[in-house]
Amino acid sequence: MFPKISVDSSSDTPIYRQLSSRIKELVQSGKLVKGDRLPATRELAGLLGLNRTTVSAAYELLETEGLIRGHVGRGSFVSTEAGAGLASIVWDDILPASEAATAPPPAHAPDLISFATSRPAEELFPLAAFRQTCEEVLSGPQAAAVLQLGSPAGYAPLREFLLEKARREGVARASDDVIITNGCQQALDLIQRVLVRPGDTVLVEDPVYPGLKNLFPRAGAQLIGAAVGPDGLDIEELERLLARHRARLLIATANFQNPTGATLPVAERLALLRLARAAGAVVVENDIYGELRYEGAPAPPIKQLDQSGDTVLLRSFSKVTFPGLRVGWIIGPRPLVARLAEAKQSCDLHTDQLSQAVLLRFAESGRLEAHRARVVAAGAERLRAVLAACERQLPPGTFFTRPRGGMNLWVRLPEPLDAAELLSRAQREGVAYLPGRYFEISHHHPGALRLSFAGLAPEKIRAGLKILGRIFAGELEQARARVRYEPAPAMV
Amino acid sequence: MFPKISVDSSSDTPIYRQLSSRIKELVQSGKLVKGDRLPATRELAGLLGLNRTTVSAAYELLETEGLIRGHVGRGSFVSTEAGAGLASIVWDDILPASEAATAPPPAHAPDLISFATSRPAEELFPLAAFRQTCEEVLSGPQAAAVLQLGSPAGYAPLREFLLEKARREGVARASDDVIITNGCQQALDLIQRVLVRPGDTVLVEDPVYPGLKNLFPRAGAQLIGAAVGPDGLDIEELERLLARHRARLLIATANFQNPTGATLPVAERLALLRLARAAGAVVVENDIYGELRYEGAPAPPIKQLDQSGDTVLLRSFSKVTFPGLRVGWIIGPRPLVARLAEAKQSCDLHTDQLSQAVLLRFAESGRLEAHRARVVAAGAERLRAVLAACERQLPPGTFFTRPRGGMNLWVRLPEPLDAAELLSRAQREGVAYLPGRYFEISHHHPGALRLSFAGLAPEKIRAGLKILGRIFAGELEQARARVRYEPAPAMV
Repeated sequence: MFPKISVDSSSDTPIYRQLSSRIKELVQSGKLVKGDRLPATRELAGLLGLNRTTVSAAYELLETEGLIRGHVGRGSFVSTEAGAGLASIVWDDILPASEAATAPPPAHAPDLISFATSRPAEELFPLAAFRQTCEEVLSGPQAAAVLQLGSPAGYAPLREFLLEKARREGVARASDDVIITNGCQQALDLIQRVLVRPGDTVLVEDPVYPGLKNLFPRAGAQLIGAAVGPDGLDIEELERLLARHRARLLIATANFQNPTGATLPVAERLALLRLARAAGAVVVENDIYGELRYEGAPAPPIKQLDQSGDTVLLRSFSKVTFPGLRVGWIIGPRPLVARLAEAKQSCDLHTDQLSQAVLLRFAESGRLEAHRARVVAAGAERLRAVLAACERQLPPGTFFTRPRGGMNLWVRLPEPLDAAELLSRAQREGVAYLPGRYFEISHHHPGALRLSFAGLAPEKIRAGLKILGRIFAGELEQARARVRYEPAPAMV
Repeated sequence: MFPKISVDSSSDTPIYRQLSSRIKELVQSGKLVKGDRLPATRELAGLLGLNRTTVSAAYELLETEGLIRGHVGRGSFVSTEAGAGLASIVWDDILPASEAATAPPPAHAPDLISFATSRPAEELFPLAAFRQTCEEVLSGPQAAAVLQLGSPAGYAPLREFLLEKARREGVARASDDVIITNGCQQALDLIQRVLVRPGDTVLVEDPVYPGLKNLFPRAGAQLIGAAVGPDGLDIEELERLLARHRARLLIATANFQNPTGATLPVAERLALLRLARAAGAVVVENDIYGELRYEGAPAPPIKQLDQSGDTVLLRSFSKVTFPGLRVGWIIGPRPLVARLAEAKQSCDLHTDQLSQAVLLRFAESGRLEAHRARVVAAGAERLRAVLAACERQLPPGTFFTRPRGGMNLWVRLPEPLDAAELLSRAQREGVAYLPGRYFEISHHHPGALRLSFAGLAPEKIRAGLKILGRIFAGELEQARARVRYEPAPAMV
């Protein structure tokens, strides 16, 4: 006879779970043993005054756990696999290799002076103006429409605003259209999805920021890097690479490139266009830093110089305003933008509309321009501070770029210093940066590192570089002493 | 001698562009002809009192446009290709085929009664409460951090909140973690990126919503559909398909499936788990409609029933609150979530933090639960309205599901009606829906269509179904008359 079972209908635990637990206990306590037949569901339901589906559910659960086994037409039996269960998924077997090795390490600790992230200074965020902007959007007639499902191409009033502005600036032709993306990173990801197939070659700047460096290899594309010097992309190397490889895309940041801060002169922008056109490569211009010029006169974007209209322009609110709001955009030929919108729909339907509407209002109200002016003034001061501190603190023989805008500069320490090796000591002493290895494609330099200065107040910049200068100079002296006193090897 | 050229240094147009325009005019007017040699850049710069790089830029531009050609060591010459230029990119050649045919058509017009979109009713949006929530977030101590660059896994306070809630509900184990996504669509896209390789098989419900149907084939995966009946997935067919194909993923919506509205009973959820485990398929449970139950008692999510902890659970704020804010999440085993976060970083760095922070506050303040109660009450009324109207208006022989929650129900019109063919007439008469073809994988039924009722007030539902009923009944009568009076073909 089947042992007595009681369930509690007032409990929060569903009846079928109580029932399966009771039967499990009977097995574990030995009151039911391997091969014992369980009552038919109808029979047990009748015995306990329960619904038959409740009993079926309890049996299913026990079967899932491997405690019982059902045989068609014969009923369910306590099985030998009691307690063992079926194998779980071995996640390590089915997951691809982690990319942790190719992604920058996290670097945050209280009081850390971090040159590691290319982002704006949050103490400059105009919180009252932003709050006011949200209030205006959410009190306006469009509030409900903003919170409702939107369009893959973006919030229509923002698209119109951006396209109109781009037309006035000469970076959008009649044949161009715009799509809103979750910042520039998604813009590149959508372009990859639509234009790049496994095995394709993508030409980028070398060094280039990790978000770009890691994206294309994931999609099975081959990444080729043309060197970036103090004056931007090496056009002669670009020409050689375009001749040797059939590149599908050429991705370039003509203004304040990340990580070098270098800017490409106008003549080289034109040469780049000519070479890319001759090679049939689509030019993608990443211009997210262009509005952060602290010195000198602006050069026309590649997109503006391109008579064919084929250049694809990426811009974003993230560097000038608030990176926590993920709103960027792509301006490019209409057929391309249509396919990008299809890809966007598959990715995430559309970009968050609250941020799109708030940033539009922030721009239309003139608050964006006022904020940009403050950010540019602060950036100019920070740029002067970082250049002066590099000059004063870094050991002789160090090379560093002299950007005129943006957020980053590129340092090459003298040999035999290794920026990656020295990072842990720097972090122990309270300063972080990103070593060159996270940026380099094929031109390697162990002494390279990126300093992102825009997010740090001038006194932090000075304090941080003083510490870095001391570490680098000390290591350099020790390394040279080691070489000097190393016994000469015997001649063989 | 080279013709006279003048430029205007007070103009807004850059000098190099003025110069290139002047030279172009000289070519077009015949003052310079094919083969003419242009002055060396140094020479022309001296003549015009300009910087040499300005002249170089003008020449580069002309060369890009194909008007002149440079020869190393010999100078630049007016070229024969004047006006012809280099070929532009032929976008149609390099773009993949459009997916327009597999995506739902847009359907919006003023006064259109649209059953075409599975989205909430915007007249129910609690705008004042939402505005107040934004104000609280942006006046709080975290405001600047919210607007600053965030983490790929999501806004930490929201992640903690969701994980804690999921633990209380029994849908997250100690071995689980959470990642925030741009709604459920991005959750599926990230899962595709991490777990699915070209050629893999993915098992889904048939019919299934277009966002899911289109996603996996893009990634080169084979999509297989197991039929969904009024009581959810056909478990016997699922068993056969799992035995025949080595499926990598099984994606199921156990509560109020889109498009059918069907709910899977507990015993079948357990059977699904057992079959998937035996086949080694990862179960992905899409539970974005689970909180919109209008009738009956809730069943435990598959994730809760899964003793192994391997089920991957997708949830979202979009259906219950505001779809314009793209915030969903994935709860799954820690190693999987870590890889999803890496993929997320490549996709778009992280989800918009303003919406994450505002939705967290909306939930913590109790406003979400109050709103959900109103949405459920309205949904119950709308569900009753749509079922009663289907009963009354649709022609005899029509089958329709009877969901107990969610946003959608599934209709099959009697033969020979074709829902896709009838759509344009319905739209002309002011009503839209989505024909079955956008949802079906391998089980085709020309009479199938989805009615999304949750976004429409009861009187709109009744008015819309009255029109649809009239169209369908009229067409049915005509079609049957055609059959009746069609001359019998001669026997051959």
